[in-house]
Amino acid sequence: MESQHELLYETPHVHLVRRNGWTYATRPAVRGIVTIVAVTDERELVLVEQRRDAVDGVVVEMPAGLVGDEPGHEDESLETAARRELLEETGFECEQMIRLGRGTTSPGITDDTLTVFHARGLRRVGEGGGVDNERIDVRVVALGELDEWLRERERDGVLVDLKIHAGLRMAGITTR
Amino acid sequence: MESQHELLYETPHVHLVRRNGWTYATRPAVRGIVTIVAVTDERELVLVEQRRDAVDGVVVEMPAGLVGDEPGHEDESLETAARRELLEETGFECEQMIRLGRGTTSPGITDDTLTVFHARGLRRVGEGGGVDNERIDVRVVALGELDEWLRERERDGVLVDLKIHAGLRMAGITTR
Repeated sequence: MESQHELLYETPHVHLVRRNGWTYATRPAVRGIVTIVAVTDERELVLVEQRRDAVDGVVVEMPAGLVGDEPGHEDESLETAARRELLEETGFECEQMIRLGRGTTSPGITDDTLTVFHARGLRRVGEGGGVDNERIDVRVVALGELDEWLRERERDGVLVDLKIHAGLRMAGITTR
Repeated sequence: MESQHELLYETPHVHLVRRNGWTYATRPAVRGIVTIVAVTDERELVLVEQRRDAVDGVVVEMPAGLVGDEPGHEDESLETAARRELLEETGFECEQMIRLGRGTTSPGITDDTLTVFHARGLRRVGEGGGVDNERIDVRVVALGELDEWLRERERDGVLVDLKIHAGLRMAGITTR
């Protein structure tokens, strides 16, 4: 049985709550979070860059998104959400969307738990960029050049999301 | 210049804040977060398990900790903090503590940004387990058995932190 938590402060997209004396942030009305390791047949990794106000800067990440938070999408499966987010953010469709696993990101401060998918058989059908207020830049990077490219982005002041590295290992994709 | 953020709700260890209309959680008085990829000379990975109230369950993670949040440790370097946390949580000292990189974990909901270290030349000098109220179980797992071991932990209801996978890739450690 789940322990109860106490609501401390409520905003439309984030609640601050406390359980057993421990304070953390949670997203109401979200049934899951998906992130996608998207690799083309030419061994390129599809990444996204966007401003993240929490870190007051631009972050490069795997495409990702919330499940169940949009009207009309309340009942979608994790796989359907992963396909939708990949298309919305990057403009890519895929033949296979394979579930790799699930894990926490920062369990000291958030209950965010991500399901990681591997998208294969990619086909570019649009520009991506996100929906509504999202302003997402798509980056398609050759795997053999990925680590050097990430170092360059860092020199330019862009933060790298650690889930890029996690996803690659979970998908068994080597870059060297 | 950093954009200003507005404080919405304050607790001793977590603040809920808003910047440019975006709400997220931040840790006051913390100057950094470190996590350690600790591998013994016998190719074993040193992990920790502890209850995390945010996810209402037990999570297996790399050893990690906050920098600058404890009286007397306000000015410690990231490397010193990494050595302190490794010792406190796992009972291991190390010869080398090598900085691998830095990145975000869940930049949609927290400003947590971790610096990842690789600890080499490990020597067990204590039991670990954490300090104060921490109740940490140390797990020392042969790298060749890691993925099967993680699947077993998941079957037992333990959540796996994604930074385990991120750290291994960043350290260039293969397990297969």
